[in-house]
Amino acid sequence: MKRLEHNFYRLLHPKVVFLLTSVGKDGRANVMSCAWATPASEEPPMVIVCVAKEHYTAELILETSEFVINIPNKNMEKIIWICGSKSGRNVDKFKEAGLRTFKGKNTEAPLIEGCIGYLECKVEKFIETGECYAFLAHVKNCMVDERYFVRNLWINDSVPMHLGGNKIVYF
Amino acid sequence: MKRLEHNFYRLLHPKVVFLLTSVGKDGRANVMSCAWATPASEEPPMVIVCVAKEHYTAELILETSEFVINIPNKNMEKIIWICGSKSGRNVDKFKEAGLRTFKGKNTEAPLIEGCIGYLECKVEKFIETGECYAFLAHVKNCMVDERYFVRNLWINDSVPMHLGGNKIVYF
Repeated sequence: MKRLEHNFYRLLHPKVVFLLTSVGKDGRANVMSCAWATPASEEPPMVIVCVAKEHYTAELILETSEFVINIPNKNMEKIIWICGSKSGRNVDKFKEAGLRTFKGKNTEAPLIEGCIGYLECKVEKFIETGECYAFLAHVKNCMVDERYFVRNLWINDSVPMHLGGNKIVYF
Repeated sequence: MKRLEHNFYRLLHPKVVFLLTSVGKDGRANVMSCAWATPASEEPPMVIVCVAKEHYTAELILETSEFVINIPNKNMEKIIWICGSKSGRNVDKFKEAGLRTFKGKNTEAPLIEGCIGYLECKVEKFIETGECYAFLAHVKNCMVDERYFVRNLWINDSVPMHLGGNKIVYF
C-alpha cells in the first residue's frame, strides 16, 4: 500500500463527465466540463455538483441559482477538452467548441444539442468545500436519449468517464 | 428524448462502488455498500458522501463524525451485495460477509482487508439532502494498492462501478 499525498480524488474516478451550463443575471451563458457530482437524493430528486470557487461557472451559478448537466456522447471528446481548458471569462466556449443550444423546460441555462442526457437543476443551497463550492440542487427536469439508455441503464460504451489527467474511458 | 420521472440519478452512473465503514460511540462498527460520493476539493482534500437518513451508517457517522471509504477489488462483488442488502442494525455484516478489518491511522472506523484503496475521513459538516444526509469530510489519510493504481490512475478492469440495479461494470 502506497500513501497518496496528491491525487486522492482519483480513487473515486472514473466519473461520468458532463458539460455544465450556467447563465448570469445578464443572460450571458457559459459551459464547462466537470465530473465532480453525485446524486444526493432519489425522492425528491437532488444532485450535488462541486465547482472551483474561481471558475466563472461558480460565479454564474451564484447569480442565478441554476445549472444544467448535459451528458455528452462519445463523439464529443474534443468538445469536452475545449470546455475543460478555457475560461468563459475570456472566450465564448459555445462558439469555440461549435456548440448549438436550445431552451429547457425549467431553466434559463441552455441545453446543448447532441447530448444524450440532461438534468435541469435549481440550486437549493451551497456550501464551501475547500477550494470549491458544492451546489445542492433539485432536478426539475430529466431527459435521456433512449438509444443509449435502455431499461433504465446506460448501454455499454456510451458515456464518457473521466479517469484522470487526459484519460477518458468507457465501461 | 424521453422524459425520466424516476431513475434520474442513473444518468450520473456508473459510479465507483465502495464499502463505507463507520463506528458508533460504543465502538460497534458497520459497513455498507455505497456509490453516491464525489471529491469536493483537491486542496484541502475533501469528499462528500451521501447516505440515506434511515441507514444505520448515517446514525453512526452522526455519532462519531468519521468514516472510511474502502474501494473493493474485482473479487469482492459478492461482498458488495451482502453489504448493500442487509442492515447493520440487525446483523453483523463483517461476519456475514467474512470480512477482516484493521485499524487505520486517523480513524476508529475500521479498514477492510483486501481492498485496493482507502480514504480515512473526518466529517466537517453535514447537510440534509432530501432523503439523505450529505457528509462533507476531510480526507486524513489515503492509501492505494500500487498494483492497481499506476502513474496515479486506476488500471483497466480493476474498480467495480455501479451502473444501476444489480449491474456492476468495469472500464
